[in-house]
Amino acid sequence: MTELPKAAVDRLIRRAGAERVASDAVDALIDILEDVATDISSQANRIARHSNRKTVTADDIKIASR
Amino acid sequence: MTELPKAAVDRLIRRAGAERVASDAVDALIDILEDVATDISSQANRIARHSNRKTVTADDIKIASR
Repeated sequence: MTELPKAAVDRLIRRAGAERVASDAVDALIDILEDVATDISSQANRIARHSNRKTVTADDIKIASR
Repeated sequence: MTELPKAAVDRLIRRAGAERVASDAVDALIDILEDVATDISSQANRIARHSNRKTVTADDIKIASR
Protein backbone atom coordinates (compact mmCIF):
# COMPACT_ATOMS: atom_id res chain seq x y z
CA MET A 1 0.00 0.00 0.00
CA THR A 2 1.34 3.42 -0.88
CA GLU A 3 1.27 6.37 1.50
CA LEU A 4 2.18 9.40 -0.59
CA PRO A 5 -0.83 11.13 -2.18
CA LYS A 6 -0.99 11.36 -5.95
CA ALA A 7 -2.03 15.03 -6.01
CA ALA A 8 1.04 16.13 -4.04
CA VAL A 9 3.46 14.13 -6.19
CA ASP A 10 1.74 15.38 -9.37
CA ARG A 11 2.35 18.96 -8.17
CA LEU A 12 6.04 18.22 -7.54
CA ILE A 13 6.44 16.94 -11.12
CA ARG A 14 4.66 19.98 -12.58
CA ARG A 15 6.66 22.35 -10.42
CA ALA A 16 9.80 20.90 -12.03
CA GLY A 17 8.54 22.13 -15.41
CA ALA A 18 6.32 19.40 -16.84
CA GLU A 19 3.49 20.67 -19.03
CA ARG A 20 1.47 17.45 -18.87
CA VAL A 21 1.93 14.43 -16.63
CA ALA A 22 0.67 10.91 -17.32
CA SER A 23 -1.15 9.30 -14.41
CA ASP A 24 1.22 6.34 -14.40
CA ALA A 25 4.17 8.75 -14.23
CA VAL A 26 2.87 9.88 -10.85
CA ASP A 27 2.54 6.26 -9.72
CA ALA A 28 6.09 5.52 -10.89
CA LEU A 29 7.52 8.46 -8.94
CA ILE A 30 5.54 7.49 -5.82
CA ASP A 31 7.07 3.99 -5.96
CA ILE A 32 10.57 5.43 -6.28
CA LEU A 33 10.10 7.96 -3.47
CA GLU A 34 8.68 5.34 -1.12
CA ASP A 35 11.64 3.03 -1.85
CA VAL A 36 14.03 5.91 -1.10
CA ALA A 37 12.10 6.72 2.10
CA THR A 38 12.22 3.09 3.24
CA ASP A 39 15.95 2.74 2.57
CA ILE A 40 16.80 5.96 4.41
CA SER A 41 14.43 5.19 7.29
CA SER A 42 15.78 1.68 7.81
CA GLN A 43 19.32 3.00 7.94
CA ALA A 44 18.29 5.89 10.26
CA ASN A 45 16.63 3.38 12.59
CA ARG A 46 19.84 1.30 12.67
CA ILE A 47 21.83 4.43 13.53
CA ALA A 48 19.41 5.36 16.35
CA ARG A 49 19.52 1.87 17.88
CA HIS A 50 23.30 1.79 17.58
CA SER A 51 23.24 4.94 19.77
CA ASN A 52 20.83 3.23 22.22
CA ARG A 53 17.99 5.54 21.26
CA LYS A 54 14.43 4.53 20.48
CA THR A 55 13.66 7.83 18.75
CA VAL A 56 14.76 8.46 15.17
CA THR A 57 15.99 12.06 14.88
CA ALA A 58 16.53 14.49 12.01
CA ASP A 59 20.29 13.91 12.25
CA ASP A 60 19.76 10.15 11.91
CA ILE A 61 17.78 10.80 8.73
CA LYS A 62 20.39 13.19 7.36
CA ILE A 63 23.31 10.85 8.05
CA ALA A 64 21.38 7.89 6.62
CA SER A 65 20.69 9.78 3.39
CA ARG A 66 24.38 10.35 2.59
CA MET B 1 6.56 25.23 0.30
CA THR B 2 6.46 21.50 0.86
CA GLU B 3 3.89 19.22 -0.73
CA LEU B 4 4.30 15.86 0.99
CA PRO B 5 2.11 15.45 4.09
CA LYS B 6 3.83 14.83 7.41
CA ALA B 7 1.46 12.03 8.47
CA ALA B 8 2.23 9.95 5.37
CA VAL B 9 6.00 10.37 5.71
CA ASP B 10 5.80 9.61 9.45
CA ARG B 11 4.06 6.32 8.60
CA LEU B 12 6.78 5.42 6.07
CA ILE B 13 9.47 5.92 8.74
CA ARG B 14 7.54 3.82 11.29
CA ARG B 15 6.88 1.12 8.74
CA ALA B 16 10.67 0.80 8.32
CA GLY B 17 10.92 -0.18 11.99
CA ALA B 18 11.22 3.05 14.00
CA GLU B 19 9.66 2.89 17.45
CA ARG B 20 9.52 6.66 17.93
CA VAL B 21 10.06 9.42 15.40
CA ALA B 22 11.04 13.02 16.17
CA SER B 23 8.91 15.63 14.42
CA ASP B 24 11.99 17.20 12.82
CA ALA B 25 13.00 13.79 11.47
CA VAL B 26 9.81 13.80 9.41
CA ASP B 27 10.60 17.31 8.14
CA ALA B 28 14.14 16.23 7.23
CA LEU B 29 12.89 13.26 5.23
CA ILE B 30 10.28 15.40 3.46
CA ASP B 31 13.02 17.80 2.35
CA ILE B 32 15.14 14.93 1.02
CA LEU B 33 12.23 13.26 -0.80
CA GLU B 34 11.14 16.53 -2.42
CA ASP B 35 14.72 17.17 -3.60
CA VAL B 36 14.83 13.65 -5.08
CA ALA B 37 11.42 14.20 -6.71
CA THR B 38 12.53 17.51 -8.23
CA ASP B 39 15.78 16.09 -9.60
CA ILE B 40 14.04 13.08 -11.17
CA SER B 41 11.15 15.19 -12.51
CA SER B 42 13.44 17.78 -14.11
CA GLN B 43 15.41 15.05 -15.85
CA ALA B 44 12.19 13.26 -16.92
CA ASN B 45 10.89 16.51 -18.38
CA ARG B 46 14.13 16.95 -20.34
CA ILE B 47 13.78 13.40 -21.69
CA ALA B 48 10.14 14.02 -22.74
CA ARG B 49 10.99 17.26 -24.53
CA HIS B 50 13.96 15.61 -26.22
CA SER B 51 11.41 13.14 -27.65
CA ASN B 52 9.15 16.05 -28.73
CA ARG B 53 6.52 15.12 -26.18
CA LYS B 54 4.73 17.48 -23.82
CA THR B 55 3.58 14.68 -21.52
CA VAL B 56 5.94 13.17 -18.97
CA THR B 57 5.40 9.39 -18.87
CA ALA B 58 6.19 6.62 -16.39
CA ASP B 59 9.10 5.50 -18.58
CA ASP B 60 10.54 9.04 -18.52
CA ILE B 61 10.42 8.92 -14.71
CA LYS B 62 11.99 5.45 -14.56
CA ILE B 63 14.82 6.34 -16.94
CA ALA B 64 15.43 9.63 -15.13
CA SER B 65 15.73 7.84 -11.79
CA ARG B 66 18.62 5.61 -12.91
